[in-house]
Amino acid sequence: MSAYKMISIPEAQDIVLSLTQPLGAVTVGLADALGRVLAEDVKAPDSLPPFPASIKDGYAVVASDGVGEFPVIGESRAGRLDDLPVRPGTVAYITTGAPVPPGADAVVQVEDTEAVQPAGGAAGERRVRINKAAKPGQDIRPVGSDITEGDLVLRAGEVVGVAEVGILATVGAVQLAVHAAPKVAVLSTGDEVVDPATRPLGQGQIRDANRAMLLAAAARAGAQVVDLGVARDAVGQLEGCLAAAIEQRADVLITSGGVSMGDRDLVKPLLERQGTIHFGRVRMKPGKPLTFATLSIAEQGGRQMMVFGLPGNPVSSFVCFNLVVLPALRKLAGWQRPELRRVAACLTSDIRLDPERPEYHRATLVWSCEPPPGTAAAATHGSSQEAAAVEGEKGLAGFQFWAVSTGNQISSRLLSARSANALLEIPCDSGVLRAGSVVSALLIDDLGLMPVPEGGVPMTPGF
Amino acid sequence: MSAYKMISIPEAQDIVLSLTQPLGAVTVGLADALGRVLAEDVKAPDSLPPFPASIKDGYAVVASDGVGEFPVIGESRAGRLDDLPVRPGTVAYITTGAPVPPGADAVVQVEDTEAVQPAGGAAGERRVRINKAAKPGQDIRPVGSDITEGDLVLRAGEVVGVAEVGILATVGAVQLAVHAAPKVAVLSTGDEVVDPATRPLGQGQIRDANRAMLLAAAARAGAQVVDLGVARDAVGQLEGCLAAAIEQRADVLITSGGVSMGDRDLVKPLLERQGTIHFGRVRMKPGKPLTFATLSIAEQGGRQMMVFGLPGNPVSSFVCFNLVVLPALRKLAGWQRPELRRVAACLTSDIRLDPERPEYHRATLVWSCEPPPGTAAAATHGSSQEAAAVEGEKGLAGFQFWAVSTGNQISSRLLSARSANALLEIPCDSGVLRAGSVVSALLIDDLGLMPVPEGGVPMTPGF
Repeated sequence: MSAYKMISIPEAQDIVLSLTQPLGAVTVGLADALGRVLAEDVKAPDSLPPFPASIKDGYAVVASDGVGEFPVIGESRAGRLDDLPVRPGTVAYITTGAPVPPGADAVVQVEDTEAVQPAGGAAGERRVRINKAAKPGQDIRPVGSDITEGDLVLRAGEVVGVAEVGILATVGAVQLAVHAAPKVAVLSTGDEVVDPATRPLGQGQIRDANRAMLLAAAARAGAQVVDLGVARDAVGQLEGCLAAAIEQRADVLITSGGVSMGDRDLVKPLLERQGTIHFGRVRMKPGKPLTFATLSIAEQGGRQMMVFGLPGNPVSSFVCFNLVVLPALRKLAGWQRPELRRVAACLTSDIRLDPERPEYHRATLVWSCEPPPGTAAAATHGSSQEAAAVEGEKGLAGFQFWAVSTGNQISSRLLSARSANALLEIPCDSGVLRAGSVVSALLIDDLGLMPVPEGGVPMTPGF
Repeated sequence: MSAYKMISIPEAQDIVLSLTQPLGAVTVGLADALGRVLAEDVKAPDSLPPFPASIKDGYAVVASDGVGEFPVIGESRAGRLDDLPVRPGTVAYITTGAPVPPGADAVVQVEDTEAVQPAGGAAGERRVRINKAAKPGQDIRPVGSDITEGDLVLRAGEVVGVAEVGILATVGAVQLAVHAAPKVAVLSTGDEVVDPATRPLGQGQIRDANRAMLLAAAARAGAQVVDLGVARDAVGQLEGCLAAAIEQRADVLITSGGVSMGDRDLVKPLLERQGTIHFGRVRMKPGKPLTFATLSIAEQGGRQMMVFGLPGNPVSSFVCFNLVVLPALRKLAGWQRPELRRVAACLTSDIRLDPERPEYHRATLVWSCEPPPGTAAAATHGSSQEAAAVEGEKGLAGFQFWAVSTGNQISSRLLSARSANALLEIPCDSGVLRAGSVVSALLIDDLGLMPVPEGGVPMTPGF
């Protein structure tokens, strides 16, 4: 029997996150800020717009002048500074974003004007007819109307996305304090595991799927990654790899394999000798032998290295990474809400329950008004035409997430993670959970890639 | 008046995608495959497992032997090859993933056995008691049960995610044909636009938000990016930048600014001279002057360069990038469904309709059973306690996307894109669309970052 108490996944997640502290701040340039988490608030050093700015191409006017024909006394162009006071009875040409000249209090867009041929006036004098009276302030952005000097534009803890890069540029924040990116070392274990390039395989060999996959997963989470290769089942090999992870100053070491009950499963004994194992068995399918330890590195000032011992089966590794490692990497990187996001989804097929462990069932979520064609639920849900007729009446109503199982869920079959964007939380019980049941689903991939249902998703009525 | 016919966004998207062809194939190593799109099918060169493999740590047995005490004739370990035939009346120790020795037809997990002290036998002979009879095939993965030699494991057109990296490693696909990543050059225009590092601003100047933002957006979409700086409103500058984009062999040039109706708006005239403008005005808010052209580069074998002339206001740029440029970049990169994904969401506040143009309203989607606190809808939706009581009864039912507006939507205010993960499709009409209305929402950011509602989202009942 295993010496480790079986705990639940929520307990495991709590333990890991309680032992995870955000990494300290480093300074990066704006070009490297995407995806990082701000370590300090960002304030605006000046107002935007910094001057009253025209919203349109047209003419800066004195609103009380109303309609009529006026001399054009000059031009205010974006980026050019002219001393151009507009007195009553005159106007100035102005371009979008340009400063509204002193004296003018409104802008009339060019579409509401027409050029007038010089007639009787001084040679070359430009005149324009204003066809629509302006209200004071019309088509002018007052100073500071978008951002006021001193405004907090982004907070510490925010993840920098595309728009945030633009906001940072707007306020001149070109050097930023962000949380350091975690350094993650990845190691596979086992005598049977060979490099993916091996072709043909020798007898008894299998290719190492986990290392490439976990390196990709850590990189996608924003980590710096270190490939530690494969540790053979020989005395000293695993110790050497652990020492390498320490020497590289990894914040996190992820191993796969070597944590089950075989007598060559050396990961747990090593972690017990060199650190503290916080859990070594988790009530989950797949992934039961999942192990988590922390090491205090005396020769590096007592800094902490976290070690996740993932099971060797690739699906178990994949699921454990998402459920337990990913939230830790996010918290290290500064995320304030590192947990996976949960939505509800409707099953498209029956799922046989496991009487011993709750299951994290790989599935592909689709936003649709009916179960996707070819699923068990589609067979009982009425024909596509009927559904389309109903849809015509109800527009966006009736749309929801449908969860399409990726098929056989055995933990060695990595094809069960192909195209999966969610882990369904399937209770531990006897019997079957029927198609049509609503379950919770943890998002593990960007829904911007989810399949598009036949016929698409309708737009807002009237759009 | 503009010379360009006003078209709708769906028309603009159709025009752009009809003129976009996926880029040709290049070969990349597995370590660089994440996020790329496969240009050819991937087949398995061999079966997985390649041998009958044990699912457990335990003993390989002859099932018909049933329970009893047996000599352990040897060990089959993962990665080691022993000639170890198991005859009736004997067993072999076996570890997870190891080949099942010839003669054995089942595995009994170690938890269902106990070691027996040698007694009367030859010194050192190992014996074990099997406490639970095995069925034939028990805890054995037959050859090819996960993947059969010749199976199509991934198809051309699939986006390589984390799991797919593992699948590719499994089948030894370490060199891959993927679609080339588009090369995207980004240029800002205008005399008023200065480098983001400028502090303090000179009179009439604003910082260039668009270039950093669009470079980040293109990079996130997987493009190689080229920063072409800022083109001033002087004769020849814009021509020079266009020539630079051609010389760099950019597939796509994105400009911002210079496309509205001002007399220094030089982008459209230049594109008319050097290529074909397919549209120059789109019925949308924000983003009306959005321009799209293609150039045929004679001196480069007639290859096509696409040019997107985005408006200068940063929000217009942001929205136009997502709606029109991003799908084109995805199609160039090989995506089979490049369009933004659409879901339905419930408004949390009233939205004033625009009588002239449909609006793409920036919002943050939250998956919740009630409108987020502080929104207008929350005030009328009943207290949080009441909702919690209802929630307790209905579990996952009643959860949906709620759309929280990012506030003032003026196109100069980039803060309206802060934390936005969706563009709401708001119809062109008079009056107000009320809180509680259901609208379509285009996903523009990973929902894995969406805000978590107070109290979280419940798990499947019984989980």
